[in-house]
Amino acid sequence: MSTQDSLKKVYENLEKLKVYSHAANIVSYDRQTTCPQEGMGEQGAVLALLSNEAFKLSKDEEFIKACEDIYDHREELDEFDQVLARIEHRDRLATKNITPEKEHEFSMVFNRAYDTWLKAREASDFSQFAPSLEAVVKTVKEQVSLREPDPDCKTEYKCDYDHMLDDYEDGMTTAILDETFEKCKDRIVPLLKKVQASKKQIRTDFMNIPVKDYQQEELGWYLLDVMGFDKNRGNMGTSEHPFTHGIALNDTRVTTHYYPNAFASSMYSVIHEGGHALFEQNQPKENFEHFITTGKTLGQHESVSRFYENRIGRSRGFLNLVYPKLKEVFPEVMGDVTTEQLYEAMNIVNADFIRTEADELTYTLHIIIRYEIERALVEGSAKVVDVPALWQEKYEKYLGITPPTDRLGVLQDMHWTFGLGYFPTYALGNMYNAMYYNRLAQDMDIEKTVESGGLLKLRDWMTENVFKKADRLCPTDWIRDITGREFTPDDFLTYLEEKYGELYQL
Amino acid sequence: MSTQDSLKKVYENLEKLKVYSHAANIVSYDRQTTCPQEGMGEQGAVLALLSNEAFKLSKDEEFIKACEDIYDHREELDEFDQVLARIEHRDRLATKNITPEKEHEFSMVFNRAYDTWLKAREASDFSQFAPSLEAVVKTVKEQVSLREPDPDCKTEYKCDYDHMLDDYEDGMTTAILDETFEKCKDRIVPLLKKVQASKKQIRTDFMNIPVKDYQQEELGWYLLDVMGFDKNRGNMGTSEHPFTHGIALNDTRVTTHYYPNAFASSMYSVIHEGGHALFEQNQPKENFEHFITTGKTLGQHESVSRFYENRIGRSRGFLNLVYPKLKEVFPEVMGDVTTEQLYEAMNIVNADFIRTEADELTYTLHIIIRYEIERALVEGSAKVVDVPALWQEKYEKYLGITPPTDRLGVLQDMHWTFGLGYFPTYALGNMYNAMYYNRLAQDMDIEKTVESGGLLKLRDWMTENVFKKADRLCPTDWIRDITGREFTPDDFLTYLEEKYGELYQL
Repeated sequence: MSTQDSLKKVYENLEKLKVYSHAANIVSYDRQTTCPQEGMGEQGAVLALLSNEAFKLSKDEEFIKACEDIYDHREELDEFDQVLARIEHRDRLATKNITPEKEHEFSMVFNRAYDTWLKAREASDFSQFAPSLEAVVKTVKEQVSLREPDPDCKTEYKCDYDHMLDDYEDGMTTAILDETFEKCKDRIVPLLKKVQASKKQIRTDFMNIPVKDYQQEELGWYLLDVMGFDKNRGNMGTSEHPFTHGIALNDTRVTTHYYPNAFASSMYSVIHEGGHALFEQNQPKENFEHFITTGKTLGQHESVSRFYENRIGRSRGFLNLVYPKLKEVFPEVMGDVTTEQLYEAMNIVNADFIRTEADELTYTLHIIIRYEIERALVEGSAKVVDVPALWQEKYEKYLGITPPTDRLGVLQDMHWTFGLGYFPTYALGNMYNAMYYNRLAQDMDIEKTVESGGLLKLRDWMTENVFKKADRLCPTDWIRDITGREFTPDDFLTYLEEKYGELYQL
Repeated sequence: MSTQDSLKKVYENLEKLKVYSHAANIVSYDRQTTCPQEGMGEQGAVLALLSNEAFKLSKDEEFIKACEDIYDHREELDEFDQVLARIEHRDRLATKNITPEKEHEFSMVFNRAYDTWLKAREASDFSQFAPSLEAVVKTVKEQVSLREPDPDCKTEYKCDYDHMLDDYEDGMTTAILDETFEKCKDRIVPLLKKVQASKKQIRTDFMNIPVKDYQQEELGWYLLDVMGFDKNRGNMGTSEHPFTHGIALNDTRVTTHYYPNAFASSMYSVIHEGGHALFEQNQPKENFEHFITTGKTLGQHESVSRFYENRIGRSRGFLNLVYPKLKEVFPEVMGDVTTEQLYEAMNIVNADFIRTEADELTYTLHIIIRYEIERALVEGSAKVVDVPALWQEKYEKYLGITPPTDRLGVLQDMHWTFGLGYFPTYALGNMYNAMYYNRLAQDMDIEKTVESGGLLKLRDWMTENVFKKADRLCPTDWIRDITGREFTPDDFLTYLEEKYGELYQL
């Protein structure tokens, strides 16, 4: 078979896989937005069927042979297909040594961990979850030991945790993270202490005035529209937890959740998810044609959603822009609130227990705590039994607060039920976007552009500079490509110091 | 293979088919409610894949052999599996003589007919659609000629149209319909003329006051709740045209459409679709276990939706019940409207051109016109070229009005793009429910039960008497089973005469 014939075979199989995954995407979207409570069980069988068919296709022998063939002759392929050949080869290496029995064993561990986590959280009792966390750590280490080395990989793995990170943030290492997070602690912890000591009064009385879902929905559509979301190629729904789903090239769904007494929650969910959606909607069409749409890391995706949520959405320029609409949609909330009061309330700092509700300043600290504990578990320098004490100690040290219960502390996140190495990606997003924000500032006056409603210009800049190569470059290469500089948290930290220094009159 | 082994094989295949059809149901629901405009194309490929896989399963040779085996030994099966054996056997007979090439040829004719109908309706020009209608009539006759006779079938087919009817309303014949529709004309046409000559004034000024979607949605959920819709096993959405989708045993979806200036439109859509939904939600579980959920005819289904929409939903008892809620949800509409004014407005008679907007009195006449024209085309006593003139003539004669354009006349419905024999089922529904309404009246004071909010009692009666055997009996047997009487339109006609005689003081 010629390389072109092999490529054709690969394409045919990926096309079928794409349709199965498209079907599964719709069912899974339906599940989270529309499916009634008691319909869930039967719907599970649908997802199982679709994923089983997709699994069979991905294990098709001829397909695997064709993948190996295009990888071996990748120099004959065009630029995009070379990327595809590497992606497929890498996927193959990652699963090569894992038998179906092992695979089954692993998922049993994770499923059980999820179940015990749910119960332990309900009971607010870490000891119920401890044996499962032990098993997860052991399993993830076993997964690392089974990985087939990738000769093309440039990453220098120095420890097991480096491999774990790699699954979520291609090319990121503990060497980079350790340095990054030390810098963060050095600059954020003292800044937070100053903020906490500040006498600055911020008005918040209007933040919890009840509003109706339809008012929030009207605001949501307005925000998506302002950002440049293409509603002919996407839609907005509601779900328990907001998410974005890139269902297909021309079908990107965002969801939000309306809390009657917290209009800002849905407002910023929509802006955050809207950022993810712009990333999905404005990918190069060539990526779809060559089946290379899954290269974006979690950190890259979060960088865009948080760029819109925090850097743009909580800026004075943006809040001035949306102020009249807020007054129109929520007259009962906005009353005599000024634009400056709105800006201050949307940027208030409040060290608290729950990561997902954290403000922009404290968020990174929540992540660092999880990172440090994960690393210690993997290295063996901490035991599972010590985790709650470590958690308390670090919250006290970095944020100045002590979670009163396991539910508000160590049991709040589900991530440790399926792996380790995920959390750092959340923090990296802020650092990536701080770097490209500064690059963007060389091309336009961002605040002025936003305040005058020029967000389409912003979207187009992001498309050309940030979105275009995200699927083809690993994050460190990608951020160098955008900014011409090496990855650093400095831009982010300087931004925090300037912003909160001014806001809290430090 | 023993009969039990064959049954097992049949079940296994039907279980897989069920999951594929469940997946397709979700995608198709998504398509009509949520999928963005430009996502439709790619989503089409998903539906094509799912239906192709289902088609392959239904053509599986071992499955077909097993179906034949359980049919041949059906006396060894329990009551439910005997029904299953007959259904599968009948499906097989219906498609036995149709080669894939023929099948393709047929669908090409129907697809083209749909395309030309869209264009002809846009141009309001029947002559553009005429060649397609000619082709559809020819094709449907060919389909009839290819049908393999079913030795078990009790229906006496006297003409091609009897076979066409049978596809939509199992066991219904022209002999029954001719007699039925003659009676209808004899009694409805003079009644309508009297109504039209009546001096009765009905207040309608409040019917077109603008309201918001969220107000209509609130009313919709209230109505579903009152009717006994189980929202843990179903949901309500919006779509261009309202519909009900029985997605799975525990997942029934209804949709509606909100028009800002016509609150009654969505109100009665919800009640109508809610009726369909109660039928789906309250099927015997055994039917699902034995895969016999598709036996309900269109007429049976419409009988239930129209029972709720017209017999219950437009009754004084029901309107008195919902009156306080209407005042609460639509204060701007209801102002000083009395319960009697509400009743009169919801039952106003207005002979007009469009079938889907017709009132309860004129609706049957719209159907009769289509039936008479269809029959004439199949028999050859009318030519396609004569259809517009026939249409005009009959509207003038039965309703006293003359459609000014083809779009408001002969081109309004899409049904003739895929077959003939469908329309009568719409009229039969009203006649079935009039018969079981009278049976129900022997067991309870319906108006009083409804007015006091006792619709759950109604639902339970319907479940036990109307829903239970609908999948297992053909409509004429089913209505005899419920009422102890032979099918007749008399109950319906007497109801119309009494109701409109009183309302219009005739």
